[in-house]
Amino acid sequence: MSLFLQVVSVSKAIEEIRNLAVRCGSETIPLIEALNRILAEDVRSDVDIPGFTRSVVDGYAVRSADTTGSSDTIPSIFPLRGSVAMGASKVHSLRSGECIYVPTGGILPEGADAVVMIEYAEDIGREVLVKKPVAHGENILFFNEDFSSGDVVCKKGQRLSPQDIGVLAAAGCTDVPIVTIPRIGILSTGNELVPVNVHPLPGQVRDVNSYVVASFVREQGCTPVLYGIVRDDRDALRAAISTATAECDAVLISGGSSKDDRDMVAEIIRDRGDVLIHGIAIAPGKPTIIGRVGNKPVIGLPGHPASAFIVLVVIVRYLFAGMTGDMDSRVRSVPARLGQNIPSSRGREDYVRVILQDGIATPLFGKSGLLNTLVKSSGIVRIPAESEGLETGTLVEVMVW
Amino acid sequence: MSLFLQVVSVSKAIEEIRNLAVRCGSETIPLIEALNRILAEDVRSDVDIPGFTRSVVDGYAVRSADTTGSSDTIPSIFPLRGSVAMGASKVHSLRSGECIYVPTGGILPEGADAVVMIEYAEDIGREVLVKKPVAHGENILFFNEDFSSGDVVCKKGQRLSPQDIGVLAAAGCTDVPIVTIPRIGILSTGNELVPVNVHPLPGQVRDVNSYVVASFVREQGCTPVLYGIVRDDRDALRAAISTATAECDAVLISGGSSKDDRDMVAEIIRDRGDVLIHGIAIAPGKPTIIGRVGNKPVIGLPGHPASAFIVLVVIVRYLFAGMTGDMDSRVRSVPARLGQNIPSSRGREDYVRVILQDGIATPLFGKSGLLNTLVKSSGIVRIPAESEGLETGTLVEVMVW
Repeated sequence: MSLFLQVVSVSKAIEEIRNLAVRCGSETIPLIEALNRILAEDVRSDVDIPGFTRSVVDGYAVRSADTTGSSDTIPSIFPLRGSVAMGASKVHSLRSGECIYVPTGGILPEGADAVVMIEYAEDIGREVLVKKPVAHGENILFFNEDFSSGDVVCKKGQRLSPQDIGVLAAAGCTDVPIVTIPRIGILSTGNELVPVNVHPLPGQVRDVNSYVVASFVREQGCTPVLYGIVRDDRDALRAAISTATAECDAVLISGGSSKDDRDMVAEIIRDRGDVLIHGIAIAPGKPTIIGRVGNKPVIGLPGHPASAFIVLVVIVRYLFAGMTGDMDSRVRSVPARLGQNIPSSRGREDYVRVILQDGIATPLFGKSGLLNTLVKSSGIVRIPAESEGLETGTLVEVMVW
Repeated sequence: MSLFLQVVSVSKAIEEIRNLAVRCGSETIPLIEALNRILAEDVRSDVDIPGFTRSVVDGYAVRSADTTGSSDTIPSIFPLRGSVAMGASKVHSLRSGECIYVPTGGILPEGADAVVMIEYAEDIGREVLVKKPVAHGENILFFNEDFSSGDVVCKKGQRLSPQDIGVLAAAGCTDVPIVTIPRIGILSTGNELVPVNVHPLPGQVRDVNSYVVASFVREQGCTPVLYGIVRDDRDALRAAISTATAECDAVLISGGSSKDDRDMVAEIIRDRGDVLIHGIAIAPGKPTIIGRVGNKPVIGLPGHPASAFIVLVVIVRYLFAGMTGDMDSRVRSVPARLGQNIPSSRGREDYVRVILQDGIATPLFGKSGLLNTLVKSSGIVRIPAESEGLETGTLVEVMVW
């Protein structure tokens, strides 16, 4: 192995990791359990929505033309021809000059084309005084105005929100075709690592990455499968990678933080498959490995949790999106003005932590290995590879956690 | 009951709903399962982080003063006194003029105060040429620079992100005290409702609200408990509310979309407890009820799913936040410029759906009862009660879904 990594750009790394992604299969589950799952197929409505023209207020169904000129001082008088019961399908038809009471959601009588709200009407027994004119279509939802039977209501690749679940319910989709959740194997390597429940001695550190990586994987809608700490030993690591690639859809190996360990991880991946990228022009996160064993993506993350996390957010999430077909990125970005200058080195993308408040992004300078700035920050700002820094007041996009 | 609702402002409704919230209990769970849970107590680190001064690069530990003046053309020469093994606690100390190899994450030898990256050094056998000076502290993380033993690493009320989980792991918190998940009972009322798996006849609509409300509740980190459709029948509704308030921490009743049905819901709540609010100056969502039975909050949501959803997002989420002590709102807002004028009525807060693209919020006008604009929209813009509308170009906050 050479001393220096042959780094590639972040965009190249994202392209490679997208290409590696093998699309997951699909399955059908009850709609009520489908929140945040990825839709595997377009879903069409089995009915017209609404299925009948209905009132959206409590009021009196009328022909709108009959209300012309009505006012508080000179109300129009309408004989009241009954009322519509909720859920009833059979309703009297309405003749010109008459009105019928309709509750919110009730079916509009045939012959009517608008509803006068009760606030603008007065029931005086067998007649109703209408004190304000209504326009054609006012206070009603027309038959199939929302969706027609056969319309696509939700699209393949959508991550289902509560609103989407609602529309699928309206469309009669009680069992929903969704993408199978990818299983992501997680290994930590490094002779310095001890389990989190152990008090570390000098020279030792707790295996924080298993927790950070597993939680990120879960947040992205995948299932983490933990393989724990593997010693920096060629045979142990080879065996662990074999098991994990056999049992999972992709594998994330964190650590091997030193050059020798990283090289060992890369060599094992190369023995069993391909190393496509070893080194990315990103700070923090440079010593990242992107490879595959068989058709399973195997990613080598930096050893330090704070660096590994940036690589997960900026690059690895595209692997998961590629596997599930998720159309939305789950990292939201928010525009803001920089509160201070940020210097940077040309030739690599810097990701600088910021605190976002009132539209101002204030950089949290300091060593990238610190966890405290990671948890204090609202997100990160990208400094492009071709830039030597960004000045105070620059409009930036903050990728918020 | 009077014909007109006595509406209160949105801020008053939020204040009342916060006051209603009874704080949930707490429990202890394994850290690996704690993503997105709310921390019930401050957590302190049981160790110094890092526990030893360590290198953050692969390189040569030196005394920084010894590197003064080093350059490509006139490198300094350092005798190599061995190397640090990962995880080793016993390390040679370093004397002035010497260097020791340290891998990333390795313990810094006593006597050293900086590390020269391998990229700026050349191993020529028993000696190393250093081609660039380093400053005191360069490329190292000092003992307890991140957190000191006893420091609070995560605070009570935090919703745990992957980064937070990482810091808790580093702090040795393998079992984490979190707030018990609230159980939220969900009822739908209305004679027009049919279960989602039924093909509705004219006059009937599917029970979309059970799905929308349950999914929103789950998204907010609570457990939905579904009681299904209850007929608009006083005894049935009274029995269902009794059961739900006995079994759950709060109850959401949607529908009773007509005035008579809403009044019946309000009367039953009043019989068994208090109705604090019946009617909010919000569009859509005016006929909302906020009450309690015993010490259990009972909320009456509008019957139409699109209206109910706005009330959940704008108001009811504060109930859940109050119950769990969640310090963060889960509705993110993003600043944007309005792409079109939005007219509005004084005296009520209007929530208008918008599509957000490239910093421009374009209103989706149309009837508030439509589901298709709800799923197409990126979020909502609030038009304050005292405003008659907002002009194109106004800077607004979009509450994004």
